[in-house]
Amino acid sequence: MPPLHRALPALRRIRLANNTFQQQSSRLGLQHTSRQAVAYPLAHQIRWQRTASRSEGEGQPTPSEPAPPARSGSKNIKYTSESYPQMQRDSRFKELDKSDVEHFRSILGESSSAIIDGVTQEASNEDLEGYNADWMRKYRGHARLVLKPESTEQVSKILKYCNDNMIAVNPQGGNTGLVGGSVPVFDEVVINLARMSKIRSFDDVSGIFVADAGVILESADSYLAERGYIFPLDLGAKGSCQLGGNVATNAGGLRLLRYGSLHGNILGLEAVLPDGTILDDLSKLRKNNTGYDLKQLFIGGEGTIGIVTALSILCPQRSPAVNVAYFGLQSYEKAQEAFREAKKQLSEILSAFEMMDGQSQNLYARASGAKLPLEEEYPFYCLIETSGSNTDHDSEKLNTFLEHVMGEEIVSDGVVAQDETQVQSLWACREGVSEASQHWGGVYKYDLSIPLPQLYDLVAEARTRFEESGLMSKEDEGKAVLDVVGYGHMGDSNLHLNVACRRYDKAVEKVLEPWVYEWVAERHGSISAEHGLGLAKKEFIGYSRSETMVKLMKQIKNFYDPKGIMNPYKYI
Amino acid sequence: MPPLHRALPALRRIRLANNTFQQQSSRLGLQHTSRQAVAYPLAHQIRWQRTASRSEGEGQPTPSEPAPPARSGSKNIKYTSESYPQMQRDSRFKELDKSDVEHFRSILGESSSAIIDGVTQEASNEDLEGYNADWMRKYRGHARLVLKPESTEQVSKILKYCNDNMIAVNPQGGNTGLVGGSVPVFDEVVINLARMSKIRSFDDVSGIFVADAGVILESADSYLAERGYIFPLDLGAKGSCQLGGNVATNAGGLRLLRYGSLHGNILGLEAVLPDGTILDDLSKLRKNNTGYDLKQLFIGGEGTIGIVTALSILCPQRSPAVNVAYFGLQSYEKAQEAFREAKKQLSEILSAFEMMDGQSQNLYARASGAKLPLEEEYPFYCLIETSGSNTDHDSEKLNTFLEHVMGEEIVSDGVVAQDETQVQSLWACREGVSEASQHWGGVYKYDLSIPLPQLYDLVAEARTRFEESGLMSKEDEGKAVLDVVGYGHMGDSNLHLNVACRRYDKAVEKVLEPWVYEWVAERHGSISAEHGLGLAKKEFIGYSRSETMVKLMKQIKNFYDPKGIMNPYKYI
Repeated sequence: MPPLHRALPALRRIRLANNTFQQQSSRLGLQHTSRQAVAYPLAHQIRWQRTASRSEGEGQPTPSEPAPPARSGSKNIKYTSESYPQMQRDSRFKELDKSDVEHFRSILGESSSAIIDGVTQEASNEDLEGYNADWMRKYRGHARLVLKPESTEQVSKILKYCNDNMIAVNPQGGNTGLVGGSVPVFDEVVINLARMSKIRSFDDVSGIFVADAGVILESADSYLAERGYIFPLDLGAKGSCQLGGNVATNAGGLRLLRYGSLHGNILGLEAVLPDGTILDDLSKLRKNNTGYDLKQLFIGGEGTIGIVTALSILCPQRSPAVNVAYFGLQSYEKAQEAFREAKKQLSEILSAFEMMDGQSQNLYARASGAKLPLEEEYPFYCLIETSGSNTDHDSEKLNTFLEHVMGEEIVSDGVVAQDETQVQSLWACREGVSEASQHWGGVYKYDLSIPLPQLYDLVAEARTRFEESGLMSKEDEGKAVLDVVGYGHMGDSNLHLNVACRRYDKAVEKVLEPWVYEWVAERHGSISAEHGLGLAKKEFIGYSRSETMVKLMKQIKNFYDPKGIMNPYKYI
Repeated sequence: MPPLHRALPALRRIRLANNTFQQQSSRLGLQHTSRQAVAYPLAHQIRWQRTASRSEGEGQPTPSEPAPPARSGSKNIKYTSESYPQMQRDSRFKELDKSDVEHFRSILGESSSAIIDGVTQEASNEDLEGYNADWMRKYRGHARLVLKPESTEQVSKILKYCNDNMIAVNPQGGNTGLVGGSVPVFDEVVINLARMSKIRSFDDVSGIFVADAGVILESADSYLAERGYIFPLDLGAKGSCQLGGNVATNAGGLRLLRYGSLHGNILGLEAVLPDGTILDDLSKLRKNNTGYDLKQLFIGGEGTIGIVTALSILCPQRSPAVNVAYFGLQSYEKAQEAFREAKKQLSEILSAFEMMDGQSQNLYARASGAKLPLEEEYPFYCLIETSGSNTDHDSEKLNTFLEHVMGEEIVSDGVVAQDETQVQSLWACREGVSEASQHWGGVYKYDLSIPLPQLYDLVAEARTRFEESGLMSKEDEGKAVLDVVGYGHMGDSNLHLNVACRRYDKAVEKVLEPWVYEWVAERHGSISAEHGLGLAKKEFIGYSRSETMVKLMKQIKNFYDPKGIMNPYKYI
């Protein structure tokens, strides 16, 4: 057992009062990365620059433009209609003509930024591309018209017209989704919320924040940080994703362990129904038991029954003290034990508990060229973050916890960040896995909820399947699969299973599907923990929901969107 | 300014590892009370024994019977149909006959505890009373049949039959509601969930607890306490109220400040729709983004679109360290300042911040005979509770906070509980207000959400109105109103306005209504923060919700319950 001192003397208070941090490399010799803009070697291989991934390692477009950035090279992305040839355009939907565009112009006014018109004008593919293609380069639609309303009333008028005229629409926020939900499939009109980006109000006693749907998550969080508060949601796409999209997809991310889900934090919503009705439920009250909580249907509704235009959310106070530790462990059982102890001993200050397997860390080191924090290799690693109001108290709690888990040989070795740079370096070991997974050409990704005791079994079994299939080799470039890695939000029982590939291959897919979904269904898990259904998982909902539930959901969809114009071909 | 030592030397760690505490009176000379069973002098004046009120001071039936206890003397309670003569029985509903009862018997079996039959047999009024009358003695129905299913399948069969035959039903949990939602108005069949009282599962790593709807809240919390966990909801009725009723009314209570609302904590529900369909959404996953979150409609749906039969809920770990402090303050502004400082300095360990005005404390002292904790009188008082994992750290944080608020003269005087008895005594000053308010004969109660800066203005203005009306006097027994008091969950912006009366009087009501509702509506507050709509507030929803919202809610009601059999005459 390694000596305790590796972890303990490193213990020091860290203040993250603002998000700036030194650019120098840390004492541990780790390469510097930042949560705002990862720039490690593999980044250049990806067509557009990305921010660091704080959640499921999702590289993201840079936040230089509010939304959405140009997707250079999207011409090379296959159209969704070609990838899914069995999917046909619904012929009931009207094809846009000049009169439609004129009507939309009459609603939106003459601002050149309000409409991108490829119907009556020669809008270049380039202009439309950023709205048609998703950042994963997996989905691409044929939309010829993008509308950018700047008020709820405009959204209402647009939807009413579309509903009256059977025009299909695709609501769009920052277009950072991972399941093809945010881009059109055929010629749906894109309704992009980027121009609705006002912060409406903030109360610094109650912490209640009200903003338009088009506000970028990072802007909201920065605004709150200046006032001593924190947005109760954080994820890799924060520099591009919009609050409305976060609500529509019920985004999970890194702060869920501590602050809970949007279903609890969202106090009010403003949304527009397909017929133009404005659901005006923008309550700023923490308690309001007056009738059905209809807004909840729009949280996670993925734009299929209405468009969220504004939200009211309860924000907690920002913690002045943040500590991050990184451990090596001998088994998944030990990781579970460490989690149990962390919950018990760190209790109210525990803000993240992430698990990464050894393969994921090796893949990250190999792809990024970074040196891993621990000298030796371990089959499992955990990253723990604490956030509290008192640095001394937090350090003492962490110290006691460390002494315990090392004394009991639960944890084999560990380091604690001594400054903000080291905090970033340790987080990069978790955040960098997603990009590392697709570094060699492609990745099959699964976002799953699985009961904690069985969570890692799936990864081990998947690895065995690939070993037996003869499709996998770390060295042999002829093999499609490089490695199988598992990591994720252990505190939320949320596993990310990534199969790192050299190329996409139907044989690989056959090893994985439907086996992964069946495996998860047998253990009553979820085939979509935090990413949603979108287009990618539409067909698989039956693995996580009963026939009755799917039937009831379809009823609600038909109830609010009887003509089916809202984000068609997706969800359920 | 009083010397600091009154507060500071009293500071000591308190462990609440179990709920037992010494029966001796405290050093402060406060009378002993317990959270489980208040027995102060006014209790005997109330017909049935009550537990201490932890939330909106709701006295409750004793938990000696699972549910519901006999309501002796309910014959003296006016029938709701008489109090609301404008309300007529809906003639579309079938009147029960022998064949209906026989059918229900065929579903429920021969157990004598499954049916209370006043239709074909001579069930005494006494037998039916506990199900017809609410504990506030304000509402009383004419039900002649009570059904007590013991499985979800039985609930399904009962509802299907009722729906097919146009039989109105009244779902009932512990019957501890405050707005007349839990008892029938006319002859609705009572479906009481008391026999569905099994704890289904608990995972001591994730904290996920699954139980039948009929489990008593206190039983659930005790079960969890033994395992180091806590139910994320606590309220005065805990000894009688059932989890299903808590969900159906979206109960708020004392732990909301810390753990958030049921919309965030409930992970899954099982519910039966009017047509017998079982909504099987009893997920044990913290994250599950696979379709519309339909269960949310049943949280706060007050039994109007279905009956909740089981729930899955995320429970936090129990804090080993609990501290309680009680302060006197010179103004409501100071109370707001104290709240702001408490949020900042106590941050992650703050578990309650309650406000009581001077009048409420005097009324409590007068009614209970208890001595108040502070020597001098103040216009405002606050009660603060902290819960954390480390007693030393928590005490130090509280100490620093106390030094600050007393040094800055935000707080004028204060005490900190030194043992569990004192914890109870301090809580009793807050909890006892509700019963004290009705000690002299009656009380008009309002449960309101109001933006914090204006929260107390309503109480002051109400007091002025009564002073000007000539209806109020502390001494003159001829006056209907004794006093106007304000208190509540300041941390949630939730005010309880109580007008303590010597008798119910239409003139008093005229001073209050619709003025209170208009006042709250003008400030965009809520006329029901945590108690729900039920029968009492059905007519007033327009003060808190727009016409559009009410219309959308009525659509949902009609969608799920097209025949309107579920808890009729109530809600919206």
